[in-house]
Amino acid sequence: MKAPWPTVAIIGVGLIGGSIGAALLTRKLARRVIGIGRTKTSLREASRRKLVSETSLDIMSSVSEADLVIVATSLSTISATLEAIDAFVRPGTLLTDVGSTKVRIVAEWERHRNVHRGCFVGAHPLAGSHLQGPSAATADLFIGRTTVVTPSRATPTANVEAVCDFWSALGSTVFVMPPRQHDRILACTSHTPHAIAAALASATPHGVQQFTAGGWRDTTRIASGDPDLWADILLDNGPEVAKSLARVATITEKMLSAIKAGDRRRLITILTHAKEIRDAVGG
Amino acid sequence: MKAPWPTVAIIGVGLIGGSIGAALLTRKLARRVIGIGRTKTSLREASRRKLVSETSLDIMSSVSEADLVIVATSLSTISATLEAIDAFVRPGTLLTDVGSTKVRIVAEWERHRNVHRGCFVGAHPLAGSHLQGPSAATADLFIGRTTVVTPSRATPTANVEAVCDFWSALGSTVFVMPPRQHDRILACTSHTPHAIAAALASATPHGVQQFTAGGWRDTTRIASGDPDLWADILLDNGPEVAKSLARVATITEKMLSAIKAGDRRRLITILTHAKEIRDAVGG
Repeated sequence: MKAPWPTVAIIGVGLIGGSIGAALLTRKLARRVIGIGRTKTSLREASRRKLVSETSLDIMSSVSEADLVIVATSLSTISATLEAIDAFVRPGTLLTDVGSTKVRIVAEWERHRNVHRGCFVGAHPLAGSHLQGPSAATADLFIGRTTVVTPSRATPTANVEAVCDFWSALGSTVFVMPPRQHDRILACTSHTPHAIAAALASATPHGVQQFTAGGWRDTTRIASGDPDLWADILLDNGPEVAKSLARVATITEKMLSAIKAGDRRRLITILTHAKEIRDAVGG
Repeated sequence: MKAPWPTVAIIGVGLIGGSIGAALLTRKLARRVIGIGRTKTSLREASRRKLVSETSLDIMSSVSEADLVIVATSLSTISATLEAIDAFVRPGTLLTDVGSTKVRIVAEWERHRNVHRGCFVGAHPLAGSHLQGPSAATADLFIGRTTVVTPSRATPTANVEAVCDFWSALGSTVFVMPPRQHDRILACTSHTPHAIAAALASATPHGVQQFTAGGWRDTTRIASGDPDLWADILLDNGPEVAKSLARVATITEKMLSAIKAGDRRRLITILTHAKEIRDAVGG
């Protein structure tokens, strides 16, 4: 059987990029998976763990050989990377990314749509973690996970479908929606939880660590995430995060007023509603 | 070897009570462990899982045979249960509990200290979970966990030591502190995280569940806890929870103002501080 994407170039071989490589090779979806990075350390680790079939420090010549390029660098460098490689890819090469916000990245690409050689379709696999780097990468990272594909209004349908096929082939369930809708939803399901987890960890007084248990650990776990990445996410999606944080604050205020009033019934109503939403997700 | 506590009565055989029974039997710390409950269903499950050596629906006659009584009922009934059993225990019998708040429970006991037959020393094993019932109980629940023992100023040292020995024998690290300090600390490390997790779950719009990932799931997990128990906890410890929630709100506001100002450096400082606190705890 012919591999669907003979040569795939992955720029950035961290948790996400490395896992994409491993999944492509394990599932025989690509013949060559070129892992591209700026430093030898992570490339060596990616090689050692067989996440990619070859590695390269020469981004420009590597992308020129690729049928599909995945930009899996840090969020703040995705747009610049897309622009930088565009001059070197073969015309019509499919490009996608893994950035946690989509409005800015898609808008920056669309600004120069007419002069581009490559065909970019933004994507976001919901598979991040507080863990980082190629050592945390696994071939099954995307199995059962959701990936959101965010075309602009100008993106040709064939390209959207090709990128959807790619993410489906890695095992994830794919949803297509406009970048703005993605950013609005992820503000609620990912960015706000992160901000809250960080605030909660930060508000914990010095010297009480011994008295934390599973609840505190679960609730604050993602505060261990990379501050640089999360600052970029929160800044990119500021207005939506602010709206979502305001909703959390309103509910917190309602709980506080029920507590102050000693209104057990009202407090139970709020807690029961929260439990129903949480139980519906499971896991 | 003589078992340190020949006969132990455990009132309530849920996650905590059942796990205490299992730990006592596994570690041969008691000859008889009488599981006491109001309904046959959980007692039968506790028997089936060998969490206790015998079961009883007759609380009064069972506690009269015990050298040590553990009140592991729901938080709101602990004080009434202690008062109810006191007339039936042998004079000098050690009593302890597992309630998540301590100020009210200890104060209610102390109000009638002079007429009591039993010797009560409050305790709180930090081993709760969103899981409930005897089916979730395990003999190793307390291993490596922290238990806080909260004597009043009038509690005889020998009784404090006996209760500390008990919790140490189950595998937990024991700290002794006044009830007020316990409630202040637990507001930060347990009760506020719960309120926040519930608010976060509750603020999640309908229809976006598919777009939650590990971060949302971790941050909201404890919102699956029992609303009745948590309403009791939050009401018992309202003023401390309010103070702790205010600290979280202040930090959230600081993050928001950094986001609005586009102040990446300031945002990274806040996120880095949170990460340091979280990383120090691990797990």
